[in-house]
Amino acid sequence: MAAPAAATRNDVTEALERIKTIVGPKGWTDDADAMAPHLADWRGLYGGSARMVVKPATTEEVAGVVAVCAEAGIPIVPQGGNTSLCGGSTPDEGGEEIILSLARMNKVRAVDPDNYTMTVEAGCILESLQQTASDADRYFPLSLAAEGSAMIGGNLSTNAGGTNVLKYGNARELVLGLEVVLPDGRIWNGLRGLRKDNTGYDLKQLFLGAEGTLGIITAAVLKIFPKPTDIRSAFCAVPDVAAAVTLLGRARAESGDAVETFELMPRLVIDLVLKHMPDCEDPLAERYEFYVLLELVSTASGESGLSERLEAILEGAFEAGLVLDAAIAQNEAQRQEFWKLRENASESQKIEGASIKHDVSVPVSRIAEFYDAAWKKVAEIDPTVRLVGFGHVGDGNLHYNLQVPEGGDGKAFLARWDEFNRAVHDTVVEMGGSISAEHGIGRLKRGELAHYKDAVSLDLMRSIKATLDPAGIFNPGKVL
Amino acid sequence: MAAPAAATRNDVTEALERIKTIVGPKGWTDDADAMAPHLADWRGLYGGSARMVVKPATTEEVAGVVAVCAEAGIPIVPQGGNTSLCGGSTPDEGGEEIILSLARMNKVRAVDPDNYTMTVEAGCILESLQQTASDADRYFPLSLAAEGSAMIGGNLSTNAGGTNVLKYGNARELVLGLEVVLPDGRIWNGLRGLRKDNTGYDLKQLFLGAEGTLGIITAAVLKIFPKPTDIRSAFCAVPDVAAAVTLLGRARAESGDAVETFELMPRLVIDLVLKHMPDCEDPLAERYEFYVLLELVSTASGESGLSERLEAILEGAFEAGLVLDAAIAQNEAQRQEFWKLRENASESQKIEGASIKHDVSVPVSRIAEFYDAAWKKVAEIDPTVRLVGFGHVGDGNLHYNLQVPEGGDGKAFLARWDEFNRAVHDTVVEMGGSISAEHGIGRLKRGELAHYKDAVSLDLMRSIKATLDPAGIFNPGKVL
Repeated sequence: MAAPAAATRNDVTEALERIKTIVGPKGWTDDADAMAPHLADWRGLYGGSARMVVKPATTEEVAGVVAVCAEAGIPIVPQGGNTSLCGGSTPDEGGEEIILSLARMNKVRAVDPDNYTMTVEAGCILESLQQTASDADRYFPLSLAAEGSAMIGGNLSTNAGGTNVLKYGNARELVLGLEVVLPDGRIWNGLRGLRKDNTGYDLKQLFLGAEGTLGIITAAVLKIFPKPTDIRSAFCAVPDVAAAVTLLGRARAESGDAVETFELMPRLVIDLVLKHMPDCEDPLAERYEFYVLLELVSTASGESGLSERLEAILEGAFEAGLVLDAAIAQNEAQRQEFWKLRENASESQKIEGASIKHDVSVPVSRIAEFYDAAWKKVAEIDPTVRLVGFGHVGDGNLHYNLQVPEGGDGKAFLARWDEFNRAVHDTVVEMGGSISAEHGIGRLKRGELAHYKDAVSLDLMRSIKATLDPAGIFNPGKVL
Repeated sequence: MAAPAAATRNDVTEALERIKTIVGPKGWTDDADAMAPHLADWRGLYGGSARMVVKPATTEEVAGVVAVCAEAGIPIVPQGGNTSLCGGSTPDEGGEEIILSLARMNKVRAVDPDNYTMTVEAGCILESLQQTASDADRYFPLSLAAEGSAMIGGNLSTNAGGTNVLKYGNARELVLGLEVVLPDGRIWNGLRGLRKDNTGYDLKQLFLGAEGTLGIITAAVLKIFPKPTDIRSAFCAVPDVAAAVTLLGRARAESGDAVETFELMPRLVIDLVLKHMPDCEDPLAERYEFYVLLELVSTASGESGLSERLEAILEGAFEAGLVLDAAIAQNEAQRQEFWKLRENASESQKIEGASIKHDVSVPVSRIAEFYDAAWKKVAEIDPTVRLVGFGHVGDGNLHYNLQVPEGGDGKAFLARWDEFNRAVHDTVVEMGGSISAEHGIGRLKRGELAHYKDAVSLDLMRSIKATLDPAGIFNPGKVL
């Protein structure tokens, strides 16, 4: 990958003026206060600087800005809701970059209920798109903790996962078409709403999950689905991780693949949430070591039979010793109570103090083995570390987070970041797993990627990057 | 894309000898009779020649053969079951190519029911993999007419569609991991069985649907699913295409998205099948203009309630005038009777005489409009042409085939191929559709691709091809 062409100060000044003209007065800022929220990442790991924040209102404006930057060699950091957990959307410390925010491109261009699609711009907030689908009597299943501020362009650029992957797949699988601005400023129009299209290479796949390093996604045709007509939730105590995995298999088979949610939580998650978050409650009377939030969903009109099915599954699991106790939500309010425990897991960990996060996946059949094997290695480093290993068991995806020991020194704990990373990630890779299941690489895991990824993969990635973005102006220093 | 390096006769002779050594005596043939089935395509459109047919038994042998060819500049045509409908897997007339058949790489490497995956080699016959999954109490949903001889490597290389896309997606969506031999002979090992993996670019996507032009798929980790426990089939007469599309939407919503099959057939398909195929029967007493084969599937254990649901859907549709008459299969034998009408559609057309096939897709919401608009243009050329427009309405995918007029001259009809192509494909493109929904491009549609695809897409495809296969030795003359 060639370095950006050296630009003289005059070139750059003139280029920035041209950009201002392209986007108009509402489309840019270099005011320190206005720029501040764009410069630091959500986790507070990185704080950079930038020449300015540009907010184009149309695809043509994005293309215009990129063309100017390509000519002047100005690197661009594309940014949506800036909720990356890996520093994927914040600028570096050099101050040479501009931030290209998609926030003003927030129109829903079309909803086609009969084709089960909607065409939306990159700056639409995820939560608002769930509502757009709902208004059309349809369902957009992508759901994750940051959905109130995350933008769909970022979700697609990071191939976001979330809580509904088991049934609906990752963000990648929810996309039928894309519109993308390329590093040379050309617009690639792949905005088609087709379930089947085998006319050459599937180019959209290049940009999904590429974290803005190959193109800037400006719009997408998304799949929408029949709306759920019935949801049944159970909060179950299970004896161990292996039991949770077995319960998952049984629930999938017995429910007719109606399992939409299957989230594992150790007791510590419940304790931290109860400690730090207001209005949360333990649905069960006694304490248990592990819990599962299980949800069945039906989209059938009329009687779903879901309630009976859930009860039958739990009854069988109870008899088999896979479930020790369970609460079934009797109404939506109770269901939301269950979800609060899951959704506040990250926030309460943050309040509790320093933590080292591992967003990893292994084959579902090896989750229990992984859970113990990784802990063994972690405990060798420090047995007082607290394990907060929770997440999407149905996808083989665990947030295998390590919390500073009770009353321990956060700084000293974080200083051993690499050591803990190595312990967990080595175990992941030994089991054919992934060191970044759903959060991506960004800046945070670039070193880990270089360490763990095989040479052929890295070489292929670099070739693709060099082909599409030879000057390296799109999100430099991320991923590769 | 650079032309293959010119190889002298001596270089080539020596290279072929090295290949023979790599694969051993069972691994190659240049005998004319043994080679014959590998040289012509299934539809009889193309007949080429080749230096020899090589059949490596392992990934290492494939890599060895490719490395030798890369050095000597010998072009390679990868081949599975050779069932391409677009001439994608047969050599050209130049005689310079070798055919690399994956037929001997037919091992199932692993089945992991708890992870819902199986790891299989490229030469496994599709039908046998359906059986492999079934033996493990799981379900592999990819299903298409050629499944008795098509190999999974070819299915993946062409991103095959088939009759279950509505519920399970195209072949691309059924893949979690791939093993691929690159044009320089390196092996890319992406054989991981993970539902979530966001560690950089999703490289497997490059090879899926690339028709062997970027890499040779040697093995894959495939998703498998809970086994259906109940299937209910109805053969329905519908007044027109628009009614069929409305029926689809209602059936999806009312059944709880249990629709696995939704195949449209005009009366002419039924007539041709009854005329040419033995032991076929019209399930309905009267003649109607259009039919739909509708199937609901459940994977729930115990009572599925599917039978009642199907009856309720049909009853409602009957009252709404969307269904004119219907037969419900009372047992598996009757269900197979329905399927015979659908599955013999292509074969009976072949017996009836010359036909010009269009494997196209449009947004589901525009199918009815397309059906009529394309016919208007076709009828302007020749109103006596017979329209055999059938297929996977649920995916927006129609096989919009034109049959030689009754008693007409096949040759004269086929001479107007380009004219008919233009009429149908222009209409497709006007409606944001695809000129190759599931069959790919191969050799047959290369000209159409160049004609219809936008310049940016073509340029991106060529860049990717040049990056991965700069010497152009993989399946030259296909796709691009």
